[in-house]
Amino acid sequence: MATKHILIVPGDGIGQEVTAVGKKVLDKIAAKFGHTFTYDEALIGHVAIEATGNPLPDESLEKMRKSDAVLFGAVGHPKYDNDPSAKVRPEQGLLKMRKELGLYANLRPIKLFDELLGASSIKPEILKGADILFFRELTGDIYFGEKGRKNNGDTAYDIAEYSRYEVERIARKAFDAARTRRKKLCSVDKANVIETSRLWREVVQKVALEYPDVEVEHQFVDATAMLLIKDPRRFDVVVTANLFGDILTDEASQIAGSMGMLASASIGDGTGVYEPIHGSAHDITGKGVANPLASILSAALLLDISFGMKAESEAVISAVDGVLKAGFRTGDIADKQTPADKILGTNAMGEEVLKLL
Amino acid sequence: MATKHILIVPGDGIGQEVTAVGKKVLDKIAAKFGHTFTYDEALIGHVAIEATGNPLPDESLEKMRKSDAVLFGAVGHPKYDNDPSAKVRPEQGLLKMRKELGLYANLRPIKLFDELLGASSIKPEILKGADILFFRELTGDIYFGEKGRKNNGDTAYDIAEYSRYEVERIARKAFDAARTRRKKLCSVDKANVIETSRLWREVVQKVALEYPDVEVEHQFVDATAMLLIKDPRRFDVVVTANLFGDILTDEASQIAGSMGMLASASIGDGTGVYEPIHGSAHDITGKGVANPLASILSAALLLDISFGMKAESEAVISAVDGVLKAGFRTGDIADKQTPADKILGTNAMGEEVLKLL
Ligand SMILES: CC(C)[C@H](C(=O)O)[C@@H](O)C(=O)O
Ligand SMILES: CC(C)[C@H](C(=O)O)[C@@H](O)C(=O)O
Repeated sequence: MATKHILIVPGDGIGQEVTAVGKKVLDKIAAKFGHTFTYDEALIGHVAIEATGNPLPDESLEKMRKSDAVLFGAVGHPKYDNDPSAKVRPEQGLLKMRKELGLYANLRPIKLFDELLGASSIKPEILKGADILFFRELTGDIYFGEKGRKNNGDTAYDIAEYSRYEVERIARKAFDAARTRRKKLCSVDKANVIETSRLWREVVQKVALEYPDVEVEHQFVDATAMLLIKDPRRFDVVVTANLFGDILTDEASQIAGSMGMLASASIGDGTGVYEPIHGSAHDITGKGVANPLASILSAALLLDISFGMKAESEAVISAVDGVLKAGFRTGDIADKQTPADKILGTNAMGEEVLKLL
Repeated sequence: MATKHILIVPGDGIGQEVTAVGKKVLDKIAAKFGHTFTYDEALIGHVAIEATGNPLPDESLEKMRKSDAVLFGAVGHPKYDNDPSAKVRPEQGLLKMRKELGLYANLRPIKLFDELLGASSIKPEILKGADILFFRELTGDIYFGEKGRKNNGDTAYDIAEYSRYEVERIARKAFDAARTRRKKLCSVDKANVIETSRLWREVVQKVALEYPDVEVEHQFVDATAMLLIKDPRRFDVVVTANLFGDILTDEASQIAGSMGMLASASIGDGTGVYEPIHGSAHDITGKGVANPLASILSAALLLDISFGMKAESEAVISAVDGVLKAGFRTGDIADKQTPADKILGTNAMGEEVLKLL
């Protein structure tokens, strides 16, 4: 019977729609398990720029710092994507949130619900049983190094940077997690070309000495991009840098059938942030068809990791499982066998999950 | 009836085994079509370090410059991979070759031979008809920027850099190719975070104005990594930066059934270099099981692009097709239906191709 304060930060596009459903699930859990969850909302991304000129207003950051956990949606808007010279961009809000809250570890569990075996473009016999936990470093690399122009704007540069302690702390988190799983860790880098990757590999090799019970391999990012599809079951825990993690986890979403199924937890020094790995998806925004399950599963991660509420978290996951077993699908996870009346929109899918809670 | 001088540069690991087969195919083509091909060999990578201390001896570079085309194998050795502090590395030879020969455009055609529909981990109905031509920029980006350490080695950095003209010239090559194909071009970047990507997008948008007949889209690299697997047929020509191209083309090898099937052409200011996209693969080196078809298909690209020999190139491709139609497979492209006596080693597979020429 705990009292917790949760900040809802929907952001842009379908972030608004799916986060509203995630919040309802948290509400239902509170009622069911006798907790008191209080809520507030804050702006980030394009909606924050529109309202305040700032992609992450100080007020939002303050609210994040003061909350026990953040349920986040997505940021982004095609307007900026098509204008490479825009100075203020929604993504700056996201990156600033990650940096200011010290969210250096982004956990992305990739697990296929058995009912969705058919929804992936990968063959079921390759997928069955795949279960990967990604640790993506989230506050360093080329994302946060100095960047700019020279030669009258004709040359652009970005500096990728990593320091030893940054690699160490994410490596430890990944090794700790591997210990609770199948005791295998794959560290992904491009040490045959990139200096930050050579430091990365050096540090992971050193941290590995503290975990003799965990089997470690080092893979290049290009080979990993191939192996993830060829043989996803060979991976247990994967740890990698910010940019490589961005690419590989989006790719790995195909292992889970759809990006619409994948939740993530960003943790570090303070408040944890929980969000779908999908983006703002303006092509389907406002149509009410976005898959809310990634936001619901993000709520499950929030309950587990930030609040230590295992039973509550499992209740959410098994409700999602139940809804899938009952044959309900959003468009992104439907296949040819799905009857039309089982294909639900965002809210209807949310209602089915709530019913099972 | 042409006279051409071809430099064979096998490099490391299975590079030796597969390039020998590629050369035999070139020989056979010369005989069949009445050309005179002369050959020389040169060292690169680990074998060059062992022999001379230098991963790309001046002598090799001179030979490359003087030849009409280079048939290249692979570089790399686990010894260096496990020692992030090694100062001399095989890959330096490869990167120097690319830079010194001005090989700024790396063409990687991804096309599935129909017979291999079953060999991929992706579902046949997703793959059938997929046909993508990648243009990977090859002499810029984080590969060639300044890199090093600071803070007593505790901080590593790599600078990614692109200048306008570098993006322009590869974009033009990609647009030109799109014109001869399905007239669709996808430019891949990470313009929502990275400044070099914003320059990239700006320049591609500008070059696009010269090609109003080509339909252009811009995708983020993370979304592309996902879409390649989810719906490979949506892509025609893809153009991207060095690092993103490295990752995405390895991933896309699964579309072609196996990395062992993929050839590439590196072209630019002078001599063109043709090579499999697979690496040195020391785990299978010396076992005689490596798939030589990527090297054979690299020879086909060499004939076509560097020598303008279309018929000769097509003869090679249709011999490969014939061998696959006859049911022959190397281990990497065999599936459960392949009878054991049709699974061939490197040389036997090469012989089957030669028989059909
Ligand atoms: C929106 C974008 C800046 C972000 C990233 O690249 O980190 C997104 O792709 C993600 O993975 O959370
Ligand atoms: C060996 C390595 C340096 C090289 C690269 O990263 O370019 C390889 O992966 C390739 O794609 O040719």
